[in-house]
Amino acid sequence: MTIENEDHGDGGGSRRDSDDKLPSVEMIFKGKVEPSWTEQLTIRAFVVSFVLGVLFTFIVMKLNLTTGIIPSLNVSAGLLGFFFLKSWTKLMEKSGLLKQPFTRQENTVIQTCVVATSGIAFSGGFGSYLFGMSSTVADASSETNVAQNTKDPSLSWIIGFLFVVSFLGLFSVLPLRKIMIIDYKLTYPSGTATAHLINSFHTPQGAKLARQQVRTLGKFFSFSFLWGFFQWFFTAGEGCGFANFPTFGLKAFDNRFYFDFSATYVGVGMICPYLINISVLVGAILSWGLMWPLIKNRKGDWYSAELSESSLHGLQGYRVFISIAMILGDGLYNFIKVLGRTIQGFIKQYKKKEVIPVTERDSPQKVSNSYDDEVRTKLFLKDGIPLWVSIAGYVAIAAVSMGVVPKIFHQMKWYYVLVIYIVAPALAFCNAYGCGLTDWSLASTYGKLAIFGIGAWAGESHGGVLAGLAACGVMMNIVSTASDLMQDFKTGYMTRSSPRSMFVSQIIGTAMGCLISPSVFWLFYKAFKDLGSPESQYPAPYAAVYRSMSILGVEGFGALPDHCLTLCYIFFFGAIIINLIRDTIAKKWAKYIPLPMAMAIPFYLGSYFAIDMCVGSLILFIWGKLNKAKADAFGSAVASGLICGDGIWTLPSSILALAGVQPPICMKFLSRGTNSRVDKFLGS
Amino acid sequence: MTIENEDHGDGGGSRRDSDDKLPSVEMIFKGKVEPSWTEQLTIRAFVVSFVLGVLFTFIVMKLNLTTGIIPSLNVSAGLLGFFFLKSWTKLMEKSGLLKQPFTRQENTVIQTCVVATSGIAFSGGFGSYLFGMSSTVADASSETNVAQNTKDPSLSWIIGFLFVVSFLGLFSVLPLRKIMIIDYKLTYPSGTATAHLINSFHTPQGAKLARQQVRTLGKFFSFSFLWGFFQWFFTAGEGCGFANFPTFGLKAFDNRFYFDFSATYVGVGMICPYLINISVLVGAILSWGLMWPLIKNRKGDWYSAELSESSLHGLQGYRVFISIAMILGDGLYNFIKVLGRTIQGFIKQYKKKEVIPVTERDSPQKVSNSYDDEVRTKLFLKDGIPLWVSIAGYVAIAAVSMGVVPKIFHQMKWYYVLVIYIVAPALAFCNAYGCGLTDWSLASTYGKLAIFGIGAWAGESHGGVLAGLAACGVMMNIVSTASDLMQDFKTGYMTRSSPRSMFVSQIIGTAMGCLISPSVFWLFYKAFKDLGSPESQYPAPYAAVYRSMSILGVEGFGALPDHCLTLCYIFFFGAIIINLIRDTIAKKWAKYIPLPMAMAIPFYLGSYFAIDMCVGSLILFIWGKLNKAKADAFGSAVASGLICGDGIWTLPSSILALAGVQPPICMKFLSRGTNSRVDKFLGS
Repeated sequence: MTIENEDHGDGGGSRRDSDDKLPSVEMIFKGKVEPSWTEQLTIRAFVVSFVLGVLFTFIVMKLNLTTGIIPSLNVSAGLLGFFFLKSWTKLMEKSGLLKQPFTRQENTVIQTCVVATSGIAFSGGFGSYLFGMSSTVADASSETNVAQNTKDPSLSWIIGFLFVVSFLGLFSVLPLRKIMIIDYKLTYPSGTATAHLINSFHTPQGAKLARQQVRTLGKFFSFSFLWGFFQWFFTAGEGCGFANFPTFGLKAFDNRFYFDFSATYVGVGMICPYLINISVLVGAILSWGLMWPLIKNRKGDWYSAELSESSLHGLQGYRVFISIAMILGDGLYNFIKVLGRTIQGFIKQYKKKEVIPVTERDSPQKVSNSYDDEVRTKLFLKDGIPLWVSIAGYVAIAAVSMGVVPKIFHQMKWYYVLVIYIVAPALAFCNAYGCGLTDWSLASTYGKLAIFGIGAWAGESHGGVLAGLAACGVMMNIVSTASDLMQDFKTGYMTRSSPRSMFVSQIIGTAMGCLISPSVFWLFYKAFKDLGSPESQYPAPYAAVYRSMSILGVEGFGALPDHCLTLCYIFFFGAIIINLIRDTIAKKWAKYIPLPMAMAIPFYLGSYFAIDMCVGSLILFIWGKLNKAKADAFGSAVASGLICGDGIWTLPSSILALAGVQPPICMKFLSRGTNSRVDKFLGS
Repeated sequence: MTIENEDHGDGGGSRRDSDDKLPSVEMIFKGKVEPSWTEQLTIRAFVVSFVLGVLFTFIVMKLNLTTGIIPSLNVSAGLLGFFFLKSWTKLMEKSGLLKQPFTRQENTVIQTCVVATSGIAFSGGFGSYLFGMSSTVADASSETNVAQNTKDPSLSWIIGFLFVVSFLGLFSVLPLRKIMIIDYKLTYPSGTATAHLINSFHTPQGAKLARQQVRTLGKFFSFSFLWGFFQWFFTAGEGCGFANFPTFGLKAFDNRFYFDFSATYVGVGMICPYLINISVLVGAILSWGLMWPLIKNRKGDWYSAELSESSLHGLQGYRVFISIAMILGDGLYNFIKVLGRTIQGFIKQYKKKEVIPVTERDSPQKVSNSYDDEVRTKLFLKDGIPLWVSIAGYVAIAAVSMGVVPKIFHQMKWYYVLVIYIVAPALAFCNAYGCGLTDWSLASTYGKLAIFGIGAWAGESHGGVLAGLAACGVMMNIVSTASDLMQDFKTGYMTRSSPRSMFVSQIIGTAMGCLISPSVFWLFYKAFKDLGSPESQYPAPYAAVYRSMSILGVEGFGALPDHCLTLCYIFFFGAIIINLIRDTIAKKWAKYIPLPMAMAIPFYLGSYFAIDMCVGSLILFIWGKLNKAKADAFGSAVASGLICGDGIWTLPSSILALAGVQPPICMKFLSRGTNSRVDKFLGS
């Protein structure tokens, strides 16, 4: 589960952990032939990865640009990877062309590659820092939109930028894999869950369940796709279609309370833990139900009545900055907490050479030097990667990057980049380590540090806003890919895949991502003209938030409207206090305390997706009541189907938009008064 | 299943016939105490009957006024009657106030009373002859709308009219009950099915299934009610809301092809046999997909281009008269067929004193003078009703009626009424006998005979149009209630209910119906101002059809537009030929030949409800594929829930309309072009 670049793994993952009960997984696989690392890297695996990479990039891109809430797609990736390659090998087998059977290692390679590819759609910042540079976003907030502080997207520079910054993270933590996986036995809940999933697929009864899950996924995929298609017909013009359905009345709709019939977010709601969904809803009610209407009453008093709706000096300012304050408060708290635990764990480890106690977030992984561990460790150590490869790789790419990044952003001096590259490996390690313990990736928090640090250093007059955003990109890419790589090493360890094949797969996946993501983004950007404007289908909320953060970092608090700073302080410390309460009180109560990070999202966006997500929760809840076993086995398949179907519909939909094919009908919602005026107008 | 007043029983009925396999039903009930006939007529039974009578009157009235397709509600009536009285007795039992246990006889009394009550909603002609007299309908077809030929509804005369005509049918066939039930052992499939249902409820495992069915019904009732409520919010103004959803695009919508999200007709589709639904769809495609667009192209050639959309001399004329031709063709064919079989069976019976062979429509009823038959016959003969009661009753009511009816309709002379009352008993017997064999009630066909007969006799200048419609009412009420009564005697026979209690229950039910139906109609009439106009929510299609028939009877064929008569001949004989083919070819092929009567309905109305019904069929079909046992057990409960929930929503909805509470939102569907014009208009 990912909210604005913070990775939790509690979503798709923890449901699989029951597989832990198996006495020994490797015993089941004992008879099977294990392919060598080069045999694991098959062409067919990368072909499938490419197809799935495109699919997931579309999905992640759509999520980026609509709300920024991205659920864990690892389960879907594993499932679909299995389905595609299984079909492939079956077909080959029938035609007598099969040379090599489909193994769990190959499955792991695909899953690693797909996650790496779609990871770029996310750490590439298309919904945050990168698109935050564009003049569209700058104009929408009508703030510091001078040429010096904007840079409009273009395929060429985005691809170039991604290529020079995305590989560093891989090299930075590569040498540490043995320490983290073998010596410290870090949990990496998502990686472990994925490994369990893949292992289970390749046992006979697991394969049967997987086939059923794939069928369920397929059914809901089709439904969701067709539903997206059906909705399209009714969206001629602004404010038309199901996405603008005033389910709870027009008044509630004006305050963005409505069910927007989005299959995606219903699916997301089914994957996310109940707590996240409730937190989002609580945040929505607090902000759009209470605070914004109250602040709106102060119009003309707290802020000038003449300002446009989207001005950061008006109501929009309160929305954005209070939201940022809460995100920063939560981020800071978790940063300190994870860092503290990292250091603590590290010291303990160093002193006692002991396994680190898992945190409350993780499902306990049995500590045993069992048969499984033995055979897995043997393989993991066999296929080494020399240290010099890591160091040489890092230095070489860093050098290229220092030359290229300032060329792309002339506001970004080469020494800013150098400083980031000196600090980054330490932070990447922290993130990979913390993620191994808690499953949280704090990539975006590190990115925000870079925004404030580099932004302030560059200063307003030297394009500090843009420099801050660019620095954020450089930093985020490193720390994010570092923790991804380590997760994949864990998965590889547990499925007895070679670290070499994992690393190569990650590199190939990243390279594919650097090409696919910008292309997909470009399709969206060209197809939907109003991309990034707050009221549109694709508001790209975090683009505005990141830009505002950068402005705040450069300009200071002077830019805020009246009383906004006070409110920001309240919410900043509020977030910290809520987190403190969550961590100190008894666990059975803590699960009822909302997460500030999740609460902050609807502050800016409105609550429609919160309602979607709660509908998803509700469906899963009722399903669980009716048939627990089925809901557990097929819940995530249904959710993945809903998300994937709707996500992939954006491909034909954007192609239609590019081709200039417009939907024929507008489903419009008018108040009775307006309707009779319209009827009179149409009648005359 | 009822299409425009023709009763088939193959809908809800035949599914229950598996109960036939029980060796002896009466053996199971042997130990139980059987109440005397006065004990069967409890006050609580009539209180429940009244509540259900109101419920079903609402449903039937809504169906009358929307399409005229009315499914068999016997199953729902039995089920809900069981549920209400079971809850009542349970409550009483707990509070220690229960004096008399709930028996199957009491259940039969309720079911008889409810069917009699809601039967009036139907034979009262609120959707056909009676409302066809109103100036609203006359104005809509802009034809013979002079005062002499119209009579607007008013509570007082409708109640008076119903009271003087509705009881005659009961007395007319009363003496024949022994012959039909005991001697001839007529099947009465609907009555038999209902009896099986009621018997099954009162066995232990039957009661359990019934409880589950009631729960299912309740769930879908709530869903359907809430769905109706939800839809309401979006219907501010004409052409708003889900009922105008252009599911297949605006072009298809203009030709009335769309899914109108009506829970009622989805439910109706689930109850009706597949053949009916497909027939309706075929008719819709033939007429609105093919013929009307082609005839429209001849505008200005075949008919004057200056005529309004609703003029009977224009396109509307083709729609109405071709539809009538087909209905008459089918009606005539079936009339002759059933009459022929009636006479044939009668002769055979008389000659051989043998049981009549059942027709292909019925599931074979085992012929056995078993224990069941013995005990049932004994009771049936015990509680006799003297012959003089029937004769005195008939003569007295006929005398009153001859005095009152001409007072209400001054165009209707007393001797017209007398002639009808002399002919009626014979026709009533024919209908009751035919219905016993085939489950078809041809009441509306006899009504149509009266329209043409009396209309032509009265002549145009003496208000023949109105006289014809009034005569139709008098005739239909007699023949319809006669066959209903005999069905109920059959049910009573099989549940060992006394014929006396059946008769009293029928009389009380009819009396309640004579008060409830006009009141409910009055509510609709007052609440929905555009009741009866072709484009409205309640087009009351058969009101126009009946009026047009009456005009045709009085004025002759001169009134028809060009080529309409030719087309009418084609469809009239087409209907006969299709029926002939159905009856001559092998049964396995015959089930694929559509029913002309069902095909004719969408000719006038459009195909939206055909699509609803096919959706219902499809749901049932898929459900049956997935879980045959469940679909069979709960299909009709789901359907009843959908129909009842939506039907009862019309009560609050009409109250809201009366109170002047208007829905707040209009969900409008505009073409892209219109939408941009509207946006410009609203923007300025």
